[in-house]
Amino acid sequence: MRVRAIALKRRPNGLPETEDFDVCEVDAPPPEAGEIQVRNVCMSVDPYMRGRMYDRKSYVPPFQIGEVLSGGSIGEVLASAHPDFKEGDFVSSSYGWREGFTAPAAQVERLGKIQAPPSAYLGALGMPGMTAYVGLLEIGALQDGESVFVSGAAGAVGSVAGQIAKIRGCSVIGSAGTDDKARLLTEELGFDYGFNYKEGSIVQHLRQAAPKGLDVYFDNVGSDHLQAALMCMRPNGRIPLCGAISTYNDAAPRPGPNNLSMAIGLGLTLRGFIVSNFMHRYANFRSDMEKWVNNGQIKTKETILGGIESAPDAFIGLFTGVNVGKMIVSL
Amino acid sequence: MRVRAIALKRRPNGLPETEDFDVCEVDAPPPEAGEIQVRNVCMSVDPYMRGRMYDRKSYVPPFQIGEVLSGGSIGEVLASAHPDFKEGDFVSSSYGWREGFTAPAAQVERLGKIQAPPSAYLGALGMPGMTAYVGLLEIGALQDGESVFVSGAAGAVGSVAGQIAKIRGCSVIGSAGTDDKARLLTEELGFDYGFNYKEGSIVQHLRQAAPKGLDVYFDNVGSDHLQAALMCMRPNGRIPLCGAISTYNDAAPRPGPNNLSMAIGLGLTLRGFIVSNFMHRYANFRSDMEKWVNNGQIKTKETILGGIESAPDAFIGLFTGVNVGKMIVSL
Repeated sequence: MRVRAIALKRRPNGLPETEDFDVCEVDAPPPEAGEIQVRNVCMSVDPYMRGRMYDRKSYVPPFQIGEVLSGGSIGEVLASAHPDFKEGDFVSSSYGWREGFTAPAAQVERLGKIQAPPSAYLGALGMPGMTAYVGLLEIGALQDGESVFVSGAAGAVGSVAGQIAKIRGCSVIGSAGTDDKARLLTEELGFDYGFNYKEGSIVQHLRQAAPKGLDVYFDNVGSDHLQAALMCMRPNGRIPLCGAISTYNDAAPRPGPNNLSMAIGLGLTLRGFIVSNFMHRYANFRSDMEKWVNNGQIKTKETILGGIESAPDAFIGLFTGVNVGKMIVSL
Repeated sequence: MRVRAIALKRRPNGLPETEDFDVCEVDAPPPEAGEIQVRNVCMSVDPYMRGRMYDRKSYVPPFQIGEVLSGGSIGEVLASAHPDFKEGDFVSSSYGWREGFTAPAAQVERLGKIQAPPSAYLGALGMPGMTAYVGLLEIGALQDGESVFVSGAAGAVGSVAGQIAKIRGCSVIGSAGTDDKARLLTEELGFDYGFNYKEGSIVQHLRQAAPKGLDVYFDNVGSDHLQAALMCMRPNGRIPLCGAISTYNDAAPRPGPNNLSMAIGLGLTLRGFIVSNFMHRYANFRSDMEKWVNNGQIKTKETILGGIESAPDAFIGLFTGVNVGKMIVSL
């Protein structure tokens, strides 16, 4: 079969534009031995993909001009030439940004019997959820009852990180980019304090919400947020460096926090991580998170755009604040 | 007896000046029960003291105007009214910046039988040596044979950190502020590569000396050095944040490294520390370091100024590059 897909037309300069992408058609032929043919039901756009659009060395190779983009997707098996897969199975793969594909079965993960909607496996039950889990519990070494600040808290990773901290009995502050999102944090997701970082000073919000300071700052944003959090950390505080979405579209490097040396006197740990280095924690994550999602302790928020042709706008929307929770493209 | 001492006359603005300090006289009376009377033989000046000259909250309270400054010193007991101390015992105390003192014996450490010169207990065998030891082995989690960069490598902490790394079979790069100091690193202290950071680009030096990158960067300097080291770190690298001497005299906060987000993809850990939180490692340190100093594996470099009246200049010299190794004021 022929399916539609999205290719990178040119490298974005600053904030990506719809014109940086092309809709094209690719083949997804009947499976040969060991292969499966899959129809994607939804695909993911994630902030880290912006980094792959630069032509530079990084922990994942750059996307190439004219090539179909890759990323997380959930699909349904249409035809199988592999004994472990049958028609109708849900699979998770990195063959995103296209309506379907044919690939060796070994390259995908069979989801098995699922209770949550398939798209949840691109969010709380997928890479963003695992990022929150590893970042908070392993990198952040979260202890029950601590004081936690999550930036980008209405996003796919942040919304899960904050809810995990609540499950662990923490006092949780979240920042977001609109008043509505800030309200969502406290009214729907159980945060103790939510604020719109565009209103007032971040430091003042943090001091009001956590007069005794922060034990953990889960950083999705970098830059001003990181500088403000450093002002408010308690001794031996931990700062998992998960993302720096505020800087991903910068044309030139932006100065870092001017108070990093506060880490010396306070004995702070700042630790960067990428979730793919923590796959040994995947089984624990999957079991904990399915329990939490299924019993309602973790609410999965999604913003859904329809059709492969909307994928570029969904991606761009990550940087302009369009999404609440996980941004999903339904196919 | 009356002894001379140095008091803080006014808070320095930027680089301290001699006129910020006063020579005064204080009493060191005969000891009462439980006390000892001590003549200091040498005293320490250390970069961290600059922070205490600001009127701000920190991990140690600020020095007060008109008060005698405190800091590390080694002295000899003149008279004792405590059963565990006798005339001629060497003691380490924080009653520095003065020629002598009388104090409860419980407030000092008796050095016992010593083989190294007393001043070494203000350097490699004292707080700076322990800072290097804890910072490299515990905070930096140094592994044998790794690639290590130490900034401020000709200073009291850096010179010891580099030599410990050599003992652990590491490849060691050091930066210093003059050609002579850079040569000292390789010619006397066993570093593999030493450079004057004022000549050429720090990144180019690091790439030349460690083409495969750095596992550990021991940061005494902050700012440009930290930014350059971040450019050259290997995956899972560690950066003990020990000091930021380049910024201690800044009148206004200075922007931080513009590439801190590299820590995310590389999984780097930046961890600040102050040595006083690691006193549980003191016995190990003392035993290892006395062995290393006594068998010549660690060379103790010192710059010695004479007389209590030279203490302000010795202190100022820390920021202008006067000292090679530990800056000592002999009394």
